[in-house]
Amino acid sequence: MESRLETLRWLSEEYHDLNGTRYDVLEAAPTPLDFSRLVHIARPVLIKESAVPEADDPEKWSKKWLSDMMKDREISVAVTPNGRADAVTRSPDNKMYFAEPYTDKMTMQSFLDTLSSGEQDSRAGTGLEVHYLQSQNGNMFSATYYDMSGNEDPSEFEPLREFVPSEIPWCSEALDKSPDAVNLWIGDENSVTSIHSDPYENIYTVIRGSKHFTLLPPTEGWCLQERRYPHATYSRSSASSELELTPSSPSTPLVRWSSVADPTAPGALPAEAHPIHITVRAGETLYLPAGWWHYVRQEGFTVAVNYWYDMEGRGMSWVWLNFLRGTEEPPLGNEEPDSGGVAVGSQ
Amino acid sequence: MESRLETLRWLSEEYHDLNGTRYDVLEAAPTPLDFSRLVHIARPVLIKESAVPEADDPEKWSKKWLSDMMKDREISVAVTPNGRADAVTRSPDNKMYFAEPYTDKMTMQSFLDTLSSGEQDSRAGTGLEVHYLQSQNGNMFSATYYDMSGNEDPSEFEPLREFVPSEIPWCSEALDKSPDAVNLWIGDENSVTSIHSDPYENIYTVIRGSKHFTLLPPTEGWCLQERRYPHATYSRSSASSELELTPSSPSTPLVRWSSVADPTAPGALPAEAHPIHITVRAGETLYLPAGWWHYVRQEGFTVAVNYWYDMEGRGMSWVWLNFLRGTEEPPLGNEEPDSGGVAVGSQ
Repeated sequence: MESRLETLRWLSEEYHDLNGTRYDVLEAAPTPLDFSRLVHIARPVLIKESAVPEADDPEKWSKKWLSDMMKDREISVAVTPNGRADAVTRSPDNKMYFAEPYTDKMTMQSFLDTLSSGEQDSRAGTGLEVHYLQSQNGNMFSATYYDMSGNEDPSEFEPLREFVPSEIPWCSEALDKSPDAVNLWIGDENSVTSIHSDPYENIYTVIRGSKHFTLLPPTEGWCLQERRYPHATYSRSSASSELELTPSSPSTPLVRWSSVADPTAPGALPAEAHPIHITVRAGETLYLPAGWWHYVRQEGFTVAVNYWYDMEGRGMSWVWLNFLRGTEEPPLGNEEPDSGGVAVGSQ
Repeated sequence: MESRLETLRWLSEEYHDLNGTRYDVLEAAPTPLDFSRLVHIARPVLIKESAVPEADDPEKWSKKWLSDMMKDREISVAVTPNGRADAVTRSPDNKMYFAEPYTDKMTMQSFLDTLSSGEQDSRAGTGLEVHYLQSQNGNMFSATYYDMSGNEDPSEFEPLREFVPSEIPWCSEALDKSPDAVNLWIGDENSVTSIHSDPYENIYTVIRGSKHFTLLPPTEGWCLQERRYPHATYSRSSASSELELTPSSPSTPLVRWSSVADPTAPGALPAEAHPIHITVRAGETLYLPAGWWHYVRQEGFTVAVNYWYDMEGRGMSWVWLNFLRGTEEPPLGNEEPDSGGVAVGSQ
């Protein structure tokens, strides 16, 4: 175990020595060949062009426009008491859980009324609950869409589909595949996305507001102290109508997650971690390579769309990501008050 | 140390489980984008197309044509007593050395007279010495050629240059660079290339004869038992006019090399190694990814050209290759009669 940690330290130091915390900034979308090379290098790239046409049209993507387009359709919205959906959370019994949000159905207008209007924290209209449109199931387009020519892939956001490309031409051509999922994200500064990594090439384009990404390369995953946590989901009490964290059945597998609640907090990461901070503004697009760890905050009313493409499964990439992630189960999150527990609870 | 070996075993097993010993065969040269994807996957690819135009013209690349083109120019030819240039060899004092060949200057005709004419071992005309045109210094084109528009890169093979492209369009475009070296290889079945790896993307095209490649992925380098050997060079004794292995000065750094002399010999490799055997015939081209281990035999009179392109230095590839190669110096080749010594001497 000690030796494995030494190996991970060596790899992360070598990787950092070679690559630093630099990232490329492109003024326009890459060609498919350029992007293929960038995928091979697997470093984040900020592209100063939107992947959504006319994203800067002032008449589109405003709260009013979204409400007018969606009318009284019901959409699924994640609700939490603290803005931390899919994150490690301390329950009233002082135990740490990986908490999934309560999913509420409401109209776009009702949802938008809960979001701040500007750059200030307002939590307008809903007391202390935080709403975030963040269903990551391909809410705009799922893999089925590409198989079935769109006939069999209903979306809650059907009226918005004509404004969102179902794929990114330079990315699909470079990777020789269609996306696995295209997701719409709408929220505000009250929601954060806890640090995690995905086995997908991720093209993340911001339409309104700003997203602040804190990134770590796959080699620095060991700095994030993954632990295993019991699973829980927020539900609404019929008595008090308040959100309550409800542990899942004991047979539900434990969830492996970083015990670092906020990697931007002082002292949250060891000195060997070299986070990269990238702000993606409206009209810009981030290429986030598969396996990169990301923590995401938002500024004001924020609308974004991301495209997940399956990573290349052949060759070495998949093996390396698994190796860096660790071939053994991490410790339990509730048995180590010095690491998992305190780190999460205090930040 | 034990734990490091366990890590390497795990990585090589995972890599093999995922990739097997498959390799792609393309009927024609890839597009730059296709090739960029193949470089990312980093598996060998056999391309059934020559990188040299008109390589199959029966009037070109024959011994007579080569001699007619080169006339009485002197060329540098590697000479060894055993056909093993740049290989670990036992000296008369029973010590193992990394032996570089004697370099003789002669005309193309004199050189060709030493090579077998067909597929049988003949060693015609030179007693037991083996000649191999294998100077790997960019003997056709070196990096200087691309910098200086060819003005400052003299080649011993100037008359052949018009028949050999200075770069491979689909590869240069995919990698966005010119080759680092282009080498001409002429030999026969009496010469073999000992197993080693290079930090270059390698495009290897065969014009006459056949090359038999035995390949191991970078993950299986640990199966090759690298050792450190003193350096020596063959020189010709003025008294006997025979080749003698002459140890270099003790201050010459030891050479790190595999102690496996012939990876195709039964029992030479552990069961965890999964060699891939690819025969590249006249008119075919092999993509050999950076870091892959290769042992090369030839069949009959063989002419080939290879293109070395610097590998991508950014990202993770370089770090991984260094890690797999080993971050510590391997043992000395002459202090372990059970491994380095016997393995080399007995095959």
